Amino acid sequence: MKAFELDSGMISGLVGQVRGESAGADDDAEAFARIAWTVLIEPGDQVAGRLIAAVGPRRALELVLAADPTHAARIWIEDGIAPERAQKIASDAFERWRPRVAARPVVRAIEHAASIGLAVVLPGDPHWPAGFAALGPAEPVAIWVRGEPARLSEFDRSIAVVGARAATGYGEHVATEIAGGIADRGVAVVSGGAYGIDAAAHRAALAAEATTIAFLAGGLDRYYPAGNSDLLTRVAGSGLVISEVPPGVPPTRIRFLTRNRMLAAASAATIVIEAGIRSGSLNTANHALAIGRPVGAVPGPVTSPTSAGCHRLLRETEAVCVTCADDAIELAGGDRIDAGAGYDPVDPEVVRVLDELGVRGGRGTEDIARSSGMSVIGVLAVLGPLELAGVIRRVESGWVRVPKTK
Amino acid sequence: MKAFELDSGMISGLVGQVRGESAGADDDAEAFARIAWTVLIEPGDQVAGRLIAAVGPRRALELVLAADPTHAARIWIEDGIAPERAQKIASDAFERWRPRVAARPVVRAIEHAASIGLAVVLPGDPHWPAGFAALGPAEPVAIWVRGEPARLSEFDRSIAVVGARAATGYGEHVATEIAGGIADRGVAVVSGGAYGIDAAAHRAALAAEATTIAFLAGGLDRYYPAGNSDLLTRVAGSGLVISEVPPGVPPTRIRFLTRNRMLAAASAATIVIEAGIRSGSLNTANHALAIGRPVGAVPGPVTSPTSAGCHRLLRETEAVCVTCADDAIELAGGDRIDAGAGYDPVDPEVVRVLDELGVRGGRGTEDIARSSGMSVIGVLAVLGPLELAGVIRRVESGWVRVPKTK
Repeated sequence: MKAFELDSGMISGLVGQVRGESAGADDDAEAFARIAWTVLIEPGDQVAGRLIAAVGPRRALELVLAADPTHAARIWIEDGIAPERAQKIASDAFERWRPRVAARPVVRAIEHAASIGLAVVLPGDPHWPAGFAALGPAEPVAIWVRGEPARLSEFDRSIAVVGARAATGYGEHVATEIAGGIADRGVAVVSGGAYGIDAAAHRAALAAEATTIAFLAGGLDRYYPAGNSDLLTRVAGSGLVISEVPPGVPPTRIRFLTRNRMLAAASAATIVIEAGIRSGSLNTANHALAIGRPVGAVPGPVTSPTSAGCHRLLRETEAVCVTCADDAIELAGGDRIDAGAGYDPVDPEVVRVLDELGVRGGRGTEDIARSSGMSVIGVLAVLGPLELAGVIRRVESGWVRVPKTK
Repeated sequence: MKAFELDSGMISGLVGQVRGESAGADDDAEAFARIAWTVLIEPGDQVAGRLIAAVGPRRALELVLAADPTHAARIWIEDGIAPERAQKIASDAFERWRPRVAARPVVRAIEHAASIGLAVVLPGDPHWPAGFAALGPAEPVAIWVRGEPARLSEFDRSIAVVGARAATGYGEHVATEIAGGIADRGVAVVSGGAYGIDAAAHRAALAAEATTIAFLAGGLDRYYPAGNSDLLTRVAGSGLVISEVPPGVPPTRIRFLTRNRMLAAASAATIVIEAGIRSGSLNTANHALAIGRPVGAVPGPVTSPTSAGCHRLLRETEAVCVTCADDAIELAGGDRIDAGAGYDPVDPEVVRVLDELGVRGGRGTEDIARSSGMSVIGVLAVLGPLELAGVIRRVESGWVRVPKTK
């Protein structure tokens, strides 16, 4: 990182604090540059996204340090934008970034993140959410994560459940039912960590001992809203809390809106439960619709202003009416979700175990082993993937099948 | 009517009792034959419908009296049905009709109808509901009507509001709001006269002093359900009560289902407010969808079984989410409805009158005449069509504009 005048040993040392083992000096310099970009820009900055895609994060950073917007302008000209306009787009962006471009805040962000146990995950990393690619040049340049980064792979079969902060008792009840049902099927519940519907969704997933993931608009050093700190600490404990912005950056209105695009893009489907006519969750739904991701809207009484946004989605968009967890799973591609979980439905041992189970009356592992003529170890090896796929679930008395969606 | 051995004078006398002035012996014989068909068949009998369409009601009746299903079979053969199957269709139909084919029950039905003030309206009559044509061979052969037959022309701009008999307080409230709003726009409210949503819809239209029309499944000598007799008497008083079957015929389950196709076909749109998963109103919605008529479903709490049928319509069909009267009017073709009413929005006198009116604070006719510089007669000539078009309405203090839908 010539431009920042940091030697590669120092860069690798810094990057190692939030990335674990070093992947070599070159990769570390690349990672450092991406981290620098999360400090430099506001989330979703498409000029940055296109410049980084064109020349890589390091070279792009050098261009900013050299105050040379020529290359950035050329990208837009090649897109058919008039040269004058393209130059204005590029130089405006460079103006925006200039006040923030320095090594010190990047170093401080990394050290701060490391001190509170955050990791950085980058595009190209094995667990980078595949759904982000739909955002094109607005794809995050990197994400800051609290929790086990490997859990990011659960986004492939996740459902975002979002809605009004000022939810009604009805809305919170339905959010609990639907998010709980999704979680029972082994599908991760994604939300925004806010009061109301978001909190009910996270709580229901935690109660089902399933993975739940929160996307926040501000840095992960302070959870917002503060009243949900305990909840978000529990979310991070067994799932993930994620932000695009480094620690120390406060959530702002615009950051909530750009955060919403991550919710929509990371998940296989977005379900809106209660939303006033100006609710931020409609913004999440619109992001999902814009990238062709399925959206479900849960109706409510037409006399309730808190359901008016859901009804508008049903009237005016491709959003589908969702009334229960099965509807949500179906919307997210039901069978596809299950297939992704990696069990083989025609494997003889899978068939033998499933033959033992009904939707009512749980069976214990030893009981299943006895009556199927399998070893306990053999039964356990089958139960795991089936549970992950949401085909079976654990109840007090043992294992039961999850009823199929039609 | 040779076959029935009634002379033409007697036929004209009978027909005149339910049709007003005679239109000539030939027309009277035709009308008598159609009336006979309403006695002979169950509503929606497509074998009868096609035979009548092919050879006319009189000749069709003679074929039945002659027990000659050859012609009826030929219609189905020409349709590509295998001859054996076509012959079975025709002879089964003739078997069905035979026990009822006699002059006496027809004469009795007409005399009974006349004694209780019913009229018969036939296809081709000026006010025959144009929408019925969409039913093809299942179009009613005639309808029995209580009320002013000229009001049948209001079907062109009418909306069917149907739903659960066992409605909740929420459902009845919403039915009252939506039907009342439709009525306020000068659009006729059509329903099925049942308890629950139907009754709330009729009541709201009556309260708005607008036309409301009930389709019943049984003969109009006895209103069903008996508990709605007073309500249906009021409906007939200012609107219409209609049935396909002659007086004396009881409503049966199958007749409720065939009745539903008339509701769907006569109206410009069908709105379902509350429906359990097996509600008869879903049958009405399916009839409407089958003939390409717009259907609206009003959502409710997903926790309410009484809204489950509406949510199923939203999930599984082309039905549109409807939350208020404006949504319903828009679904029924909004502007088209208004345009059909025959006022000219750029007529200088229309403009002058509308300029005097607001959505609040009614203005009296003389007051409008004074300030617009028009004669009272001139103002009245404009107010009528505007009211019919739902552009203005009468309130206690005079006339006001109806707020426009977006």
